[in-house]
Amino acid sequence: MSKIVECIPNFSEGQNQATIDGLVATAKSVPGVTLLDYSSDASHNRSVFTLVGDEVVIQEVAFRLVKYASEHIDMTKHHGEHPRMGATDVLPFVPIKDISTEECVDISKKVAERINKELQIPIFLYEASATCPERTNLAKVRKGQFEGMPEKLLEENWAPDFGDRKIHPTAGVTAVGARMPLVAFNVNLDTDNLEIASKIAKIIRGSGGGYKYCKAIGVMLEERHIAQVSMNMVNFEKCSLYRTFETIKFEARRYGVNIIGSEIIGLAPAKALIDVAEYYLQVEDFDYSKQVLENHLLG
Amino acid sequence: MSKIVECIPNFSEGQNQATIDGLVATAKSVPGVTLLDYSSDASHNRSVFTLVGDEVVIQEVAFRLVKYASEHIDMTKHHGEHPRMGATDVLPFVPIKDISTEECVDISKKVAERINKELQIPIFLYEASATCPERTNLAKVRKGQFEGMPEKLLEENWAPDFGDRKIHPTAGVTAVGARMPLVAFNVNLDTDNLEIASKIAKIIRGSGGGYKYCKAIGVMLEERHIAQVSMNMVNFEKCSLYRTFETIKFEARRYGVNIIGSEIIGLAPAKALIDVAEYYLQVEDFDYSKQVLENHLLG
Repeated sequence: MSKIVECIPNFSEGQNQATIDGLVATAKSVPGVTLLDYSSDASHNRSVFTLVGDEVVIQEVAFRLVKYASEHIDMTKHHGEHPRMGATDVLPFVPIKDISTEECVDISKKVAERINKELQIPIFLYEASATCPERTNLAKVRKGQFEGMPEKLLEENWAPDFGDRKIHPTAGVTAVGARMPLVAFNVNLDTDNLEIASKIAKIIRGSGGGYKYCKAIGVMLEERHIAQVSMNMVNFEKCSLYRTFETIKFEARRYGVNIIGSEIIGLAPAKALIDVAEYYLQVEDFDYSKQVLENHLLG
Repeated sequence: MSKIVECIPNFSEGQNQATIDGLVATAKSVPGVTLLDYSSDASHNRSVFTLVGDEVVIQEVAFRLVKYASEHIDMTKHHGEHPRMGATDVLPFVPIKDISTEECVDISKKVAERINKELQIPIFLYEASATCPERTNLAKVRKGQFEGMPEKLLEENWAPDFGDRKIHPTAGVTAVGARMPLVAFNVNLDTDNLEIASKIAKIIRGSGGGYKYCKAIGVMLEERHIAQVSMNMVNFEKCSLYRTFETIKFEARRYGVNIIGSEIIGLAPAKALIDVAEYYLQVEDFDYSKQVLENHLLG
């Protein structure tokens, strides 16, 4: 069974259809790579692509996309609401099947090295690939954005991991790294009081002293008149969905509030959900890779 | 995305290694077919193979296996503990991905017709492919076993679905049909009283007036001194695992007994478990085929 890696490059182009089409064509140019999805946002002026392939082809397609973006996106002319620092802004590699995060770190470093060598774009390694704790968090790495990067690269702590202390004139700087798959998981409460959802979000998220691998905010679903705890589960193996669900349930109880449902937005790895079934059914000794039939069908 | 069908032929040979090896070689002789597993039991004198492939290649490999078995297994000399009526005793086709049970019924009929035409083995269609209600159940179809089949085929209601009222002299009769994937799901109780497990099994199983698509018996796990409700979930889409789990929980309560764990034996389709997660997390509008990442990676 072959290894499967997901790559989710974010490009600083969400308006020029010709460039987006070129990126799509490039994404499809490597045999063995599947373009699962792509979406562009004009106000963010940004496009997000989702690709999968084995550990070899994913490196090739990632490089080709970064090259294409560097030749067709000019950051000196880029405007958009979303923070950004490069033509290819971030390039995460995510382990999907029969591959570890550590192996994806290796992949990210190889691609980063090649990008810098052949395209002269300076690279920050982030998330699991970060070379020091303050580079783990993308927001910190990207702080200052494209316009602030020339100065930032000269700061003592901000020499790039690959390349000189000098941005690429039009393609800026790219963050490359390995991370676990994200699961976007929202829990709906039977209250129209946003404050309750926000209070619960604050205590369950890592930054508030809650679960390290959970990001959460309270949001209002205006059309349904209900408040929601909206989460990004950034490592479902270290914090399963059932754990935040049960925690929200018992925290909501103090307000006399119940959970009325939940949502999973976009794609989720099967394991993130099967872990939940294992918990509630109290399954003993389940071997995910061997006992799930579909795992024997993949590649 | 291509359709995926599973085929689980049961052969009346579990002792002669040369014949088993020949079946394995035949199973591997069709490109695009994966032999997921095979196991032989000497006392049953029976082997069970698990193959997957698309709707075309699965038909070809099924036929080749039945042909090989008919040429190498002599039922007039077969002895074993397990009930059996043919060299290939049963040949079920199971929908795994992007294919319906109805389409697997069509597949089963095409293969059955070819087996009869080219090999002169009479066929009973069973399970979802059955042409009348009393042929749904394999035990009823196989009643009388190999030795009783010559007479049975002459009975008014037991003309084969394909072929004449005459067994194949050495290969007997084969049952061919489509069925849902089985999930073997056992629930462990914190009691050493087998009677409690047996009583619960009786009321949750279809034959006892319980869930139509659940088969259940009480068994004793001698080494752990606990009783277990052992189930075969024969259609997890019509009766999800959580439903029997929760029912066992509330039925056990009247005896002051709790569930202490469960087991899933062998392979289970991802959907059987993800359905469970959806229930417990109260997920709204989850689209299994679109939102589970792995579903985009298969074929």
